[in-house]
Amino acid sequence: MNIRAIVFYIGYILRLEALMLLPSIGIALYRHEMSCVVAFLIAFAVLMIVGQGMVMLKPNDRSIRAKEGFVIVALGWIFMSVFGCLPFILSGYIPNFVDALFETTSGFTTTGATILTDVEVLPRSLLYWRSFTHWVGGMGVLVFMLAIVPSSKGSGDSLHILHAESPGPVVGKLVPKMRFTARILYAIYIVLTVIEIILLVAGGMPFFDSLIHAFGTAGTGGFSNMNLSVAAYNNVYFEIVIGVFMALFGVNFTIYHCALVGDFKSVFRNEELRLYFLILVCAILAITINILPLYGNSFFTSLRYSFFQVSSIMTTTGFSTADFSEWPEFSRLLLIALMIIGACAGSTGGGIKVSRLLILGKSAMHTLRKLSHPQSVSVLRIDGRKIGDNVLSSVNGFLVIYLGICAASIVIVSLDNLDTATTISAVFACLNNIGPGLNVVGPLGNYNVFSGLSKVVLIFDMLLGRLEIFPIVMLFSPMTWRRL
Amino acid sequence: MNIRAIVFYIGYILRLEALMLLPSIGIALYRHEMSCVVAFLIAFAVLMIVGQGMVMLKPNDRSIRAKEGFVIVALGWIFMSVFGCLPFILSGYIPNFVDALFETTSGFTTTGATILTDVEVLPRSLLYWRSFTHWVGGMGVLVFMLAIVPSSKGSGDSLHILHAESPGPVVGKLVPKMRFTARILYAIYIVLTVIEIILLVAGGMPFFDSLIHAFGTAGTGGFSNMNLSVAAYNNVYFEIVIGVFMALFGVNFTIYHCALVGDFKSVFRNEELRLYFLILVCAILAITINILPLYGNSFFTSLRYSFFQVSSIMTTTGFSTADFSEWPEFSRLLLIALMIIGACAGSTGGGIKVSRLLILGKSAMHTLRKLSHPQSVSVLRIDGRKIGDNVLSSVNGFLVIYLGICAASIVIVSLDNLDTATTISAVFACLNNIGPGLNVVGPLGNYNVFSGLSKVVLIFDMLLGRLEIFPIVMLFSPMTWRRL
Repeated sequence: MNIRAIVFYIGYILRLEALMLLPSIGIALYRHEMSCVVAFLIAFAVLMIVGQGMVMLKPNDRSIRAKEGFVIVALGWIFMSVFGCLPFILSGYIPNFVDALFETTSGFTTTGATILTDVEVLPRSLLYWRSFTHWVGGMGVLVFMLAIVPSSKGSGDSLHILHAESPGPVVGKLVPKMRFTARILYAIYIVLTVIEIILLVAGGMPFFDSLIHAFGTAGTGGFSNMNLSVAAYNNVYFEIVIGVFMALFGVNFTIYHCALVGDFKSVFRNEELRLYFLILVCAILAITINILPLYGNSFFTSLRYSFFQVSSIMTTTGFSTADFSEWPEFSRLLLIALMIIGACAGSTGGGIKVSRLLILGKSAMHTLRKLSHPQSVSVLRIDGRKIGDNVLSSVNGFLVIYLGICAASIVIVSLDNLDTATTISAVFACLNNIGPGLNVVGPLGNYNVFSGLSKVVLIFDMLLGRLEIFPIVMLFSPMTWRRL
Repeated sequence: MNIRAIVFYIGYILRLEALMLLPSIGIALYRHEMSCVVAFLIAFAVLMIVGQGMVMLKPNDRSIRAKEGFVIVALGWIFMSVFGCLPFILSGYIPNFVDALFETTSGFTTTGATILTDVEVLPRSLLYWRSFTHWVGGMGVLVFMLAIVPSSKGSGDSLHILHAESPGPVVGKLVPKMRFTARILYAIYIVLTVIEIILLVAGGMPFFDSLIHAFGTAGTGGFSNMNLSVAAYNNVYFEIVIGVFMALFGVNFTIYHCALVGDFKSVFRNEELRLYFLILVCAILAITINILPLYGNSFFTSLRYSFFQVSSIMTTTGFSTADFSEWPEFSRLLLIALMIIGACAGSTGGGIKVSRLLILGKSAMHTLRKLSHPQSVSVLRIDGRKIGDNVLSSVNGFLVIYLGICAASIVIVSLDNLDTATTISAVFACLNNIGPGLNVVGPLGNYNVFSGLSKVVLIFDMLLGRLEIFPIVMLFSPMTWRRL
């Protein structure tokens, strides 16, 4: 295990995090939020000193293998969350460490679950920081690092990091050099975010609110500066813009790259994309019909709320325009199912991912075929490409560990003795990085009610979800640290 | 597809079912339950005529392949349930067809879920039939058929049927000839049942009640002749006998065969058995501690209820001595987890089975090892034997289809708009062949509240659970019926 390389990369991440605090410091100064200015400056200083100190212990050998990649990503995200919660604690707005860590991890992991009962009392600089963590966490801090750090030699190192941080079963390099792949991803990400901000401002949303909601959409996070979330504006135009952009940020970014370079064949034959939109459309229609009686049998009103909520939940964003916790059980449980499925691989969304669903479904069909026709020979293909045994076993392993984590988390959180829907939906909402769940943790509720133990479990669930389980599991596995 | 062989075997099953009605006819005559005598006699005549008719269409070629095995098992169970519900309908005690089918399928599949609000008003002959279906369904009707039908040539045909009907990922032949394997299984089954009856009668339970509860225990079914289930007796001795026998019937019967022939090495190195008892003991202790405050902090009382309930739920029996639906959320959700895990492969219990859990867990560890040490070579072993790729892919396929069926069932049943815990636990309680769930379908509740659609879905869930998914899925899969 190359410990010194791990320290170096984590120091680099912390230094980057210090720089991310700068806009908030600017806002705090401009708005004369003095307690926040002090809080942000202390956090900045701590991050700079610790980060610089770690970077200065230059490793002779910066090369990393798969397991170091996992450890860097897992520890990097944990450190980032621990240091990132300093402004909340120091400013006195979230004095409790576990609560502040919950809120910050929820931000970076793009979950959007909050322990705050009233977000509107937060000063702007803190609101900005809270939502900016979504934007940074959405595409990934380490992907950003890869985009700017000159790689030591070759692109092998970077691939291990990108692999560990990026959502989805397979990571494709867009261009031969990883550094340029990372840059292309971030460029697409920035352009889409800017377009959304412009559209929201053009529709009359205040500039600050537009930033906050664009960050929440882009990272598929879901933090709003309004207690009622997007419902506060009661504006169909905003809902359409945010609803459509949520769906767009749930698409594999490789698709945009293909479209940009004119490779429309790859776009149209992408099975994950088709299944993603198919599920979106079917879920929107089913829920629209199911909630008709609640909205005076108005198809348009039902469609409006259904469209926004399905797009928000399936992309694991978590904005809300209606209290879906009060919807009929069918809609509630369908939304829970969408939480688990999640968005496309290679997007900023969470969940199991549509492509994993596709691989699992196809391999199950394969098993059935083998059972009825033991002699038959068939190959598992997605987008016309053969799915290797290693991908298949990794996806199956993912599912098993995912289910094990679900079960363990639900059982521990159930010690708080809340109702079944709250307990189960809280775990799914955190593990899949959605944010709001049902009942107590519904769109109008929050996570304040849970015990410290449950909050810690949910914090780990958020990290497990964002990093797709393996890095965090590897960090705590003796196998990783054992010499082989 | 050898349709004529399928018809022949199903006819044979129906003729067997007619014979199974004889004890009930005897009881009805003895107790002067005249409406039941008529109902049973008509059912007997219908089964005999239809069954004999089908058997008489003798196939030239009785050889069957894997897919015919699946179809015979799936159709056999469906026919058996449809004809088996005749006595309930004809006697007028359950006039509605869907309700009667629900009750009968629940019996044969050893689920034990009931739509009756008051079982104590049923005449004895019907109560006997209802519980006898558990006993027959536990070990399997087709296994019984194999034990008595002389095989046409070789044992290949029978293996396909045993494979399709027996619970668990791998079926071991105990002795070279399938017919004798089936006989040994039934011999062990009968001996254990008789011992339990003797112990219950010796403790003072009425003979009829002892029969009913022994049938419910042996098949891990759970139908009682008391509305309060085993709680009605409030007798620690009965609870210990039934509790211990439930745990024993959840053990792979191969273990008993090994013990009988003196092969204790196989018994002690059986990993599934150790994990099964480990989970049992841990769950009993965790729930005992969790429910202490409910029982005046008495460790003994808590242990008494916890032991019985854990043994009942994990073996998927479903007897109850306490209303666990009123227990704290931790115990409730832990019981749901046990429902899903289920008993050992090759036992009469349902659920995913401990051995599948073992295979899934080991293969997930395998995936993690591959991720951190891509060059490492390791082999998946259980009980020292290598687990082949085909078993692994079949277990993974099972898990995926199982989860898909769970999700689809939950979403359809949620249309009845009951609470989340009821909806989810009803599906799990039927799919894993337990019986009682939480809230509305708790130990003191019943399934009467569901719509016809939900009942049909739950009936299919029971069949899917008992036959371990594949046969029923294959029956409805176009792949099975297509020529290849």
